[in-house]
Amino acid sequence: MDRQGTRERIEELARELDFLHGEDHYRLAYRYDATGIKGRCGGVAFPRGLDDLLMIVDACLERGIPLFARGAGTGFSGGAVPGGDGIVISTERMNRILRFDQENEEVEVESGVVNQDLQDHLAPIGYFYPPDPASLKSSTIGGNIAENAGGPRAYKYGVTRRYVRSLTWIAPGIGLVSSPTEGGSSLLVGSEGTLGIVYSARLSVLQLPRSYGTSILEVPGEEEAVRFALHLMSSGLYPCVIEYIDGRTMRCVGEYKLLEGLSGNAGYIFLEIDGSSGEVEEHMGLLARLCREADVRMRSARSGEEREFMWEMRRAISPSLARRGVTKVNEDVSLPLGRLGEAVSFIHRLAEELSLDCYIFGHCGDGNLHVNIMTDRRRTAEMKRVELFVDRLFRRVVELGGTLSGEHGIGMTKSRFLGYRFSPAEMELQRRVKSAIDPNGLINPGKYFSGGSEECS
Amino acid sequence: MDRQGTRERIEELARELDFLHGEDHYRLAYRYDATGIKGRCGGVAFPRGLDDLLMIVDACLERGIPLFARGAGTGFSGGAVPGGDGIVISTERMNRILRFDQENEEVEVESGVVNQDLQDHLAPIGYFYPPDPASLKSSTIGGNIAENAGGPRAYKYGVTRRYVRSLTWIAPGIGLVSSPTEGGSSLLVGSEGTLGIVYSARLSVLQLPRSYGTSILEVPGEEEAVRFALHLMSSGLYPCVIEYIDGRTMRCVGEYKLLEGLSGNAGYIFLEIDGSSGEVEEHMGLLARLCREADVRMRSARSGEEREFMWEMRRAISPSLARRGVTKVNEDVSLPLGRLGEAVSFIHRLAEELSLDCYIFGHCGDGNLHVNIMTDRRRTAEMKRVELFVDRLFRRVVELGGTLSGEHGIGMTKSRFLGYRFSPAEMELQRRVKSAIDPNGLINPGKYFSGGSEECS
Repeated sequence: MDRQGTRERIEELARELDFLHGEDHYRLAYRYDATGIKGRCGGVAFPRGLDDLLMIVDACLERGIPLFARGAGTGFSGGAVPGGDGIVISTERMNRILRFDQENEEVEVESGVVNQDLQDHLAPIGYFYPPDPASLKSSTIGGNIAENAGGPRAYKYGVTRRYVRSLTWIAPGIGLVSSPTEGGSSLLVGSEGTLGIVYSARLSVLQLPRSYGTSILEVPGEEEAVRFALHLMSSGLYPCVIEYIDGRTMRCVGEYKLLEGLSGNAGYIFLEIDGSSGEVEEHMGLLARLCREADVRMRSARSGEEREFMWEMRRAISPSLARRGVTKVNEDVSLPLGRLGEAVSFIHRLAEELSLDCYIFGHCGDGNLHVNIMTDRRRTAEMKRVELFVDRLFRRVVELGGTLSGEHGIGMTKSRFLGYRFSPAEMELQRRVKSAIDPNGLINPGKYFSGGSEECS
Repeated sequence: MDRQGTRERIEELARELDFLHGEDHYRLAYRYDATGIKGRCGGVAFPRGLDDLLMIVDACLERGIPLFARGAGTGFSGGAVPGGDGIVISTERMNRILRFDQENEEVEVESGVVNQDLQDHLAPIGYFYPPDPASLKSSTIGGNIAENAGGPRAYKYGVTRRYVRSLTWIAPGIGLVSSPTEGGSSLLVGSEGTLGIVYSARLSVLQLPRSYGTSILEVPGEEEAVRFALHLMSSGLYPCVIEYIDGRTMRCVGEYKLLEGLSGNAGYIFLEIDGSSGEVEEHMGLLARLCREADVRMRSARSGEEREFMWEMRRAISPSLARRGVTKVNEDVSLPLGRLGEAVSFIHRLAEELSLDCYIFGHCGDGNLHVNIMTDRRRTAEMKRVELFVDRLFRRVVELGGTLSGEHGIGMTKSRFLGYRFSPAEMELQRRVKSAIDPNGLINPGKYFSGGSEECS
């Protein structure tokens, strides 16, 4: 890519399009995302609707300028970090909820709508949109679609793919595709922004449950906690949320929120059951019995306020960890349920061996663990050990039959590990699909396929 | 395609491979599927496992011989009908259940395993595989994957896509791909055999519910029955099965099975609730109240035998219709829930206007209607009216926001209607993916994309 040429083409374009900004402060702010990886940004476009979006995408493709779609930039794999002085297309001004259709339990939104704003829109009319990534207060539906986001509720309700009925998006060289997922748009879900730019989505929504039962269980031993969670799931209990939180993480949260009554020397399960009041009552009874039989301590919310408090504690995990280090290396891996306990023990041992400060929590129900190392990028010796940790983590996870990412995606940070998970034949297949749709490689280049470094060229 | 050349290449190959048969009786039997469309078959291969499968696929691709994968041939859109004197690959001898992993609630099967055989294997150990197409007693997992099959339970449990964890399949020019669905294999689900040949699948399975509540509701009026079903679903009732059956179909079934106590002058809803005994009891109570309030007659199964009897009645629909005509034109369309009632009324009026014998039933919960015209291919004047009916049906369904197929696929019979549903941009996208994976067009040619006739060349 001719760097000077790209700059000039963008400056020329910025004079034509009032929603494209090439000023330094924009170019600086949008070269990062939540990973802290520093990219290279030639300009930022803020399309206000479909016309603007078509205009900027066409203009870039015509001029050979790379394009990087960005929702809220909360991703943990660098998916929204730009490179090659390309243009970032921020969806933040395309944030309208276009239509709610109660009879069909469906909502149509622009891709920049924030997940929480959608929930707030739906709740008063008795509905909710199930995918609930931890970032839901800032992350957008477009970003959630790109990463096929899950969240605590995914165990019962499944991930984003299940709720996308159709997408309106721009495919390079083809133009606007407004297609139900049965006709090819399903490719876009989980494609990490590498195939096209989403303008809007029709999503299915569900009626809000009438009742909830929320509990925290304290199990002596980390691996035992995971095993107990599996025991609950195979005993006819059907929670909507079942999260594992390791003792170190819980102590960290406990200090942060001044939560009392938890010993902090155990593994924890955060669990919610939803449904009609009869269902919730029945399942909470079953849960109490299973806990009694296994000598597991159970603390349940006795009111809406207590439920809210427990959720706040769950959501406090990420912010509370931030006090333990300057740099958070946050890997999410997914494992077959039967190997979860083993994986947790392995990860704890590995962190100890490498003297790293490690916190594990995650969506136990679908085998998705978040492994966090709190460190400091500036301590180079420690960072070398972190690299070793991550490498051995991924190797072991794949040996255990797991995947490199539960929901954060591959992006830039994991693309060099793809070979652990996929054979050359599988990579060839994915490359063929990519180049069939984006033959000139202008849509989010440097991601997934690049096998490259964390520094963006 | 040089016909004589293909024949010779197949004969040569049949001398090398003991599982490839070129005899006339094989070529005759395998040129048809459940549609009755007559294809052209050059030979039939019965691979006994992965080695055989790799051998036959490689041999065909090398020699430019078209390939047609076939499960049980029960499809309703001609997906397994061969053309161009190519080779049919029957999966019927690849019918092993390879592995059951209880901890991970997962089963691994060869693609030729019959759906019912899998259910029979799982039930004694307390599990089931949710997709339950009406053909489940003969259709195969491979065929179910190709068509992304659903069934009555799809309302609660979703369709095949939700249960496929990974596929081992042969991609032309790439070879064996053994890939979790996060890595591109999801393309295969619903691709109607046009992208590659599946050898095996890892499927997630669920624990069998502990209890069932099964009812038939009689609602005065067809459109009213559909509306009442929607009312139930929006009133907090969460059945696993909710089927609409029109009065004409019910009368037909009633005569056939000598079922008593139903007037036959109404629309019907066949409904099942599953879960723990407490859940089922609670929901059956709610159902009874909603029926009372709306003056709807409700007949519930009071024993396992009565439940089985009701299911037999449901499953008797297809065979009982067969007595009404020589040829069944069976279209399945999918509609937004809010337009179902309107669609049912439209279809009944249209059939009356064209003097056609029409029966409607279907999976109300996910908007999937099966529209059957009982006729006789030999009555040419009537067949012209059937053609007109189908054309107007599809146009109206698409106007109402619906799709051309709920679960039967496009195959040969519907490909000429694709333009009603997809824009040129959408078709271009699908074509690009197809030719990226199958550049020489040897995998199930003449299907989906051909826009062609029902006669196979």
